[in-house]
Amino acid sequence: MAPQKGNLMTFREDVRVLDCTIRDGGLCNDFRFTDDFVRDLYQTNLATGTDYMEFGYKASVDLFNPEDFGKWKFCSDEDIYDIVGDNDTNMKISVMADVGRTDYKRDIRERSNSPVDLVRVATYVKTIPAAIDMIEHCAKMGYETTCNVMAVTQARREDLLEALELLGKSPIHTVYIVDSYGSLYPEEIRDISDMYLEKMDKYGKQVGIHAHNNMQLAFANTITACANGVSMLDATMNGMGRGAGNCMMEQLMTFLRNPKYQLPPVLRFVEQHMDKLRAEGVKWGYDTPYLLTGYMDMHPRTAIAFTKDNRHDYATYFANLGHE
Amino acid sequence: MAPQKGNLMTFREDVRVLDCTIRDGGLCNDFRFTDDFVRDLYQTNLATGTDYMEFGYKASVDLFNPEDFGKWKFCSDEDIYDIVGDNDTNMKISVMADVGRTDYKRDIRERSNSPVDLVRVATYVKTIPAAIDMIEHCAKMGYETTCNVMAVTQARREDLLEALELLGKSPIHTVYIVDSYGSLYPEEIRDISDMYLEKMDKYGKQVGIHAHNNMQLAFANTITACANGVSMLDATMNGMGRGAGNCMMEQLMTFLRNPKYQLPPVLRFVEQHMDKLRAEGVKWGYDTPYLLTGYMDMHPRTAIAFTKDNRHDYATYFANLGHE
Repeated sequence: MAPQKGNLMTFREDVRVLDCTIRDGGLCNDFRFTDDFVRDLYQTNLATGTDYMEFGYKASVDLFNPEDFGKWKFCSDEDIYDIVGDNDTNMKISVMADVGRTDYKRDIRERSNSPVDLVRVATYVKTIPAAIDMIEHCAKMGYETTCNVMAVTQARREDLLEALELLGKSPIHTVYIVDSYGSLYPEEIRDISDMYLEKMDKYGKQVGIHAHNNMQLAFANTITACANGVSMLDATMNGMGRGAGNCMMEQLMTFLRNPKYQLPPVLRFVEQHMDKLRAEGVKWGYDTPYLLTGYMDMHPRTAIAFTKDNRHDYATYFANLGHE
Repeated sequence: MAPQKGNLMTFREDVRVLDCTIRDGGLCNDFRFTDDFVRDLYQTNLATGTDYMEFGYKASVDLFNPEDFGKWKFCSDEDIYDIVGDNDTNMKISVMADVGRTDYKRDIRERSNSPVDLVRVATYVKTIPAAIDMIEHCAKMGYETTCNVMAVTQARREDLLEALELLGKSPIHTVYIVDSYGSLYPEEIRDISDMYLEKMDKYGKQVGIHAHNNMQLAFANTITACANGVSMLDATMNGMGRGAGNCMMEQLMTFLRNPKYQLPPVLRFVEQHMDKLRAEGVKWGYDTPYLLTGYMDMHPRTAIAFTKDNRHDYATYFANLGHE
């Protein structure tokens, strides 16, 4: 195991915080956030010292019907400009582009004419060649890029190592460990981040972590990765994200020692907006069925349906899990 | 840092699971559990493979009015016999005795005439001499004993080291790391468990962990301690315990690899009893104010009042925390 980087009395200059409340949280409400919510979130992230704010997905309108979703599924430059103006701040703006779901040659144009700074390319290991094509396009257009390699637990290690080599040689800035099913324990996070860091150090690139809270380990895994040398840390307000959600921004803000990061704006936002969303019936966060899909390293879709139906028959659910 | 003991594909024979749902959960409902609940819990723990079941506190009726609490605040031998009969099983029965709150010379008599196997003596570092007197008494009466050194984060390290030396020389079996305020990060758990294990190894004794979930780290800290060599692991059904509660038994059962441990009985119990308790208004579990008291290493009493009052003004609460 690599030695820990930094400790609880210091901070590392390489650490960056990315708020993806709209993007991962949007999976809970089909991206139907009010403009007030998004504007307040932007101001809150500025006050918090957040380094990147992700507005949503850059999905293709040829593949998804805009009437079925709020606008942050598509993240047009115009909609982002409406919120951030010319974003004359130190905070960078990010969007996520899924391999196969973004018409990037049409929809991702020159950075100089866009409010977006960072394009995060989300891919499975098997679609790495397509991801690299997107990364090269985005780099050519002037964007900072990351590659978020999803479902890391279900990739074969030899494929993952080859993917990391290819990404190391690409114009990418950061490669992300993505625990899509929330199934990793901290000791596995240490092992995987050792692997990612070794490959990326070789190419002068950084590593990020995007955790899910299925087993109530999202915060633990995020800070474990951070202590191991991972630089980019994803979080969302009150952990809003698909199913069990993500590492909570308020948790992360109590952990980070760099005085540029501020907890109170996050607390105010949770109070004003997140509790309201919950009261309106939007559901996310730890619950027993997510523990079970996390433990079984399975997609949480059946657990989401279980909580939506207000079921409580956990033992029956578990007995059938993977056999339905 | 000491090397990890065991891994995710093996199990350690020294690991023991202790269910303290009645004892720590009793702090949420003044120990007013129905006999049905306690009987089903006993049967569930047997089916789960739990090694110890803790019935409650051995509080003195001279100090606490029995009318103010359910019977498990006092744990008379007769009340335990009512549930377990002669407990002709492999599961051991435990009670907790607080230094200064138990009339142990009167209330803790010969083990041969009691259903209790283990007395867990809870103490602060400053009352270690009184704890050792209790431990010696209980050992003389034939009981297995542990010492649960509370509020470890607020003890000076030199005092703690001396306490561990004294406990090492006592007739104790296990000494517990108790993160009373839920304020420890996994990296601190590794450091503290290294310290405890080094001292206890010297005397041929074991170490246990009792975690709180204020920062949503109870499970992470429990399995981190376990991987570091800690043997006795506390958990409660659905994490029921004061404030943010404890490591959840269902989480622990998904982690442990020894096939003697069974998850489904826990899921059935959560379904039948814990969801019902919540529906009846008993409150426990992670919430924002607990994150804040955990982060500040403070007793959760103001956070408990905050959630009881259904307050949501987290930023105001945080601004005043420690200044009220």
